[in-house]
Amino acid sequence: MASALTWNRYGKSGIRLVKVRRAGDPHEVVDLTVDVALEGAFDNVYTDGDNRACLATDTMKNTVYAFARVEPIDHAETFAVKLAEHFSEKPGVSLVRIAIDEHPWTRLQAHAFARAGEEVWTTAVSYKDDKAEVVSGLRGLVVLKTTDSAFSGFPRDRFTTLPETRDRILATSITAAWTYAEGFDDYAKRAAIRTAMIDTFASHKSESVQQTLYAMGEAALAACSGVTDVRLSLPNRHHLLVDLSPFGLDNPNEIFVATDQPYGLIEARITRALG
Amino acid sequence: MASALTWNRYGKSGIRLVKVRRAGDPHEVVDLTVDVALEGAFDNVYTDGDNRACLATDTMKNTVYAFARVEPIDHAETFAVKLAEHFSEKPGVSLVRIAIDEHPWTRLQAHAFARAGEEVWTTAVSYKDDKAEVVSGLRGLVVLKTTDSAFSGFPRDRFTTLPETRDRILATSITAAWTYAEGFDDYAKRAAIRTAMIDTFASHKSESVQQTLYAMGEAALAACSGVTDVRLSLPNRHHLLVDLSPFGLDNPNEIFVATDQPYGLIEARITRALG
Amino acid sequence: MASALTWNRYGKSGIRLVKVRRAGDPHEVVDLTVDVALEGAFDNVYTDGDNRACLATDTMKNTVYAFARVEPIDHAETFAVKLAEHFSEKPGVSLVRIAIDEHPWTRLQAHAFARAGEEVWTTAVSYKDDKAEVVSGLRGLVVLKTTDSAFSGFPRDRFTTLPETRDRILATSITAAWTYAEGFDDYAKRAAIRTAMIDTFASHKSESVQQTLYAMGEAALAACSGVTDVRLSLPNRHHLLVDLSPFGLDNPNEIFVATDQPYGLIEARITRALG
Amino acid sequence: MASALTWNRYGKSGIRLVKVRRAGDPHEVVDLTVDVALEGAFDNVYTDGDNRACLATDTMKNTVYAFARVEPIDHAETFAVKLAEHFSEKPGVSLVRIAIDEHPWTRLQAHAFARAGEEVWTTAVSYKDDKAEVVSGLRGLVVLKTTDSAFSGFPRDRFTTLPETRDRILATSITAAWTYAEGFDDYAKRAAIRTAMIDTFASHKSESVQQTLYAMGEAALAACSGVTDVRLSLPNRHHLLVDLSPFGLDNPNEIFVATDQPYGLIEARITRALG
Repeated sequence: MASALTWNRYGKSGIRLVKVRRAGDPHEVVDLTVDVALEGAFDNVYTDGDNRACLATDTMKNTVYAFARVEPIDHAETFAVKLAEHFSEKPGVSLVRIAIDEHPWTRLQAHAFARAGEEVWTTAVSYKDDKAEVVSGLRGLVVLKTTDSAFSGFPRDRFTTLPETRDRILATSITAAWTYAEGFDDYAKRAAIRTAMIDTFASHKSESVQQTLYAMGEAALAACSGVTDVRLSLPNRHHLLVDLSPFGLDNPNEIFVATDQPYGLIEARITRALG
Repeated sequence: MASALTWNRYGKSGIRLVKVRRAGDPHEVVDLTVDVALEGAFDNVYTDGDNRACLATDTMKNTVYAFARVEPIDHAETFAVKLAEHFSEKPGVSLVRIAIDEHPWTRLQAHAFARAGEEVWTTAVSYKDDKAEVVSGLRGLVVLKTTDSAFSGFPRDRFTTLPETRDRILATSITAAWTYAEGFDDYAKRAAIRTAMIDTFASHKSESVQQTLYAMGEAALAACSGVTDVRLSLPNRHHLLVDLSPFGLDNPNEIFVATDQPYGLIEARITRALG
Repeated sequence: MASALTWNRYGKSGIRLVKVRRAGDPHEVVDLTVDVALEGAFDNVYTDGDNRACLATDTMKNTVYAFARVEPIDHAETFAVKLAEHFSEKPGVSLVRIAIDEHPWTRLQAHAFARAGEEVWTTAVSYKDDKAEVVSGLRGLVVLKTTDSAFSGFPRDRFTTLPETRDRILATSITAAWTYAEGFDDYAKRAAIRTAMIDTFASHKSESVQQTLYAMGEAALAACSGVTDVRLSLPNRHHLLVDLSPFGLDNPNEIFVATDQPYGLIEARITRALG
Repeated sequence: MASALTWNRYGKSGIRLVKVRRAGDPHEVVDLTVDVALEGAFDNVYTDGDNRACLATDTMKNTVYAFARVEPIDHAETFAVKLAEHFSEKPGVSLVRIAIDEHPWTRLQAHAFARAGEEVWTTAVSYKDDKAEVVSGLRGLVVLKTTDSAFSGFPRDRFTTLPETRDRILATSITAAWTYAEGFDDYAKRAAIRTAMIDTFASHKSESVQQTLYAMGEAALAACSGVTDVRLSLPNRHHLLVDLSPFGLDNPNEIFVATDQPYGLIEARITRALG
């Protein structure tokens, strides 16, 4: 039997890096989890146990910490691009992928901070042929609206029991990733993109999670001309109305069970159309 | 061989309850996870399979949802006391324990909210002999300070390698629980207690996690005269200075590895002294 | 206002230790997570920032690794006692608590192993006044039975909707902790105690989780005369029968939804009676 | 600004299904978590809030439970194909994806079982144009070897500090996914494929995780002629040798710290070569 290595990638994941900028007052904190991954001409590593081209993943980790000392890390995106450029010059490398999770902190005082919650800001740089593709985003942004969410008019078959509703709770944990146009590097636009999506979620008259997702994607594109497309993934965190009638009570859309499983999962990509 | 049932407790845990108050505008959201537990004369359930005294845990769950419809739930504490009173009247019950996790939401708009993070507000009511003991608190409040934290002067033995430091990162995830005096019911004081602990963490000139913990406990007692004692648990989320010297770089307290394991764990109870 | 430190404890948690015994063939692996905690006359550390009595938690960690080199660790219990004796001799210490999670591995070959699952073996040694109390146990042992489990005859009130059943699925994740008599040290008895509890779970004609719990506790006591009491905690992992009647199908106790929340939680202590 | 919906997918995830087969004795348990996802002509749902083509995810859930009653579920793969066929006939659907996690149980007695651990068996069926592609696999299979693992001969640059080693611990959590050839349906071959990978891990003289991964992939292909390719993902769960020299002790490859972060991550696809 013959077999072939048809794809390979390796690297270091989960590099936990905290940088404190002490030059000014107040201090600033940058809290990142960095993943480095390489693709390239590493077949002999796999098939022959020949490690001459295999940059150690421990070396990748060291490199991240050394670069963190030298680079300002004003934006995770620029730091990722610098790292990608460095690793792209190693023998055999054809593609570098740097993925960074940024854990935001809220300032309490000049030298003290509180974690801002479960929300994580993400960036993933794919570097190939001297070009970087930068995809930024977020995950773990949990939002809920108490009205302006309906789900009705859907098809009914033998297995359909869900009643139609014109007023339900809509809750989700937003995962979003947007692609910046080549050459665009105003990464501070993250804030405007994020606000646009949140505002749309809050104010949208929703006929479905799908429709709200699309509106959020459109809002993200409108908030930053440097974004070429947006991918959104919205798990539907169902809030089930409790039947209180056995206890002689009504339930005017007020008491809910929050459930984890099962959950609807709605995903789409919205792309800027050429005009 | 003879054996005896020397302690027992049973109940329902993880009751996920969301209440939306729609009477006014803007809407309000209360998001709770409720645990109910009973102790009492239930020996025959265990030893004989006689269920005549065994209130079903499913009934406990139903009761929580029904009470949620009727009670305003202005504070989780008062809701817990109401539930405890109800269950205390069931045959055989000697002690009721109601524990509630409250998941705070931040308002985005009149009818939209974002989860405020990993912080959870806790309350535990122990109800016995017609009296409620109320212990409230929080967990998952992650804080970090970039200066004013030292650890030196500790004893050195054969196994000590830790260098002394006068300036390190101090990070922790605060778990706090405070006991209210009997009859005290101004549960809105939670905010002042919480602020006092955070402010103390931020501004304290720390010689150790222990010393900062004690100062935080004192501050909590000072913030609310209705609190009789405070228990704090502070895991030390170590931030290790990276040795960059192999790469020809210094590291002036700037680049750190954030670690999960192992972690120091500092716990204490601070009690209001009579005087 | 005056306040007082009324209880304190500190230590190092989450010390991840793997020991490979290579002297013989096949190799043996011991995989532990160790927690060290001290109580004692440490008030000045908290109240005055005086660290002269504060053994660093980093030193505790180093001590665990050094002892692991010297001690055989045939049983986690004996290793814990050795560590406790060591720390009990430090100035100011009145009580040492060593808690160990052991992660079992199954042998694949002479030098290869697979993790045996989520089950963890636990031991907690409390050392005070030159005496060790040893409590061993396990957690994460998930078991399920498809018959011989009933729940009926329970009281019904205004909030009861649960139907009675004579045949349901019973599933739980066993947490057990048993106390060894002073001086008893045949820690290999763990296997017999564990088997007794599992066999009882499997074969018991259950009228309730409570009754099965009690039978398991009795079986554990019967399996080892050196055990003085057993504490069991059994979350009821409810398997809800799916109503298939809307689809023209029956469901003769065959198709279930496995749920996480809410869950019944049944706990008790069973003690050997003097006779 | 104009924007376009360039990709979409929606469905129900986390459908927890337990089936008990009671016809024979002993009983049999099947424990699955099912995800259903559809792609197709659903643009109007997103862009216009028109739900006429939007099969409710609640209906998907109901369908899974109803099919579970009727289908034998001898293999998760055949159940997934049946579900996929059903959903493919709904208006607008161009692609159905059914992903199933199977949670294995070990038999204790005729009617009692224990969870076999963290290992999950996976299958993902993509159904399009009346054809099913079946990819099966596993995840969470944690293995460790105490010898026959080296890492040396790798390049050294300015940031390399890792020493070469000819004998280290190798530990990983195996994630594998293999594609069956069109028309192949002997899904019981899972056992042989799994055994081949485990045996290879255990016996391989490893020069790197990469080389062991490749050997495991080759072994999987050799174990089942119906497999066309294998994808493996092996996180390197580093076990770091503890430096005991400050305590006057040697450490002959015996005492290790098990770490979670950072971790090497090695991934590849191995494909059967036509010959």
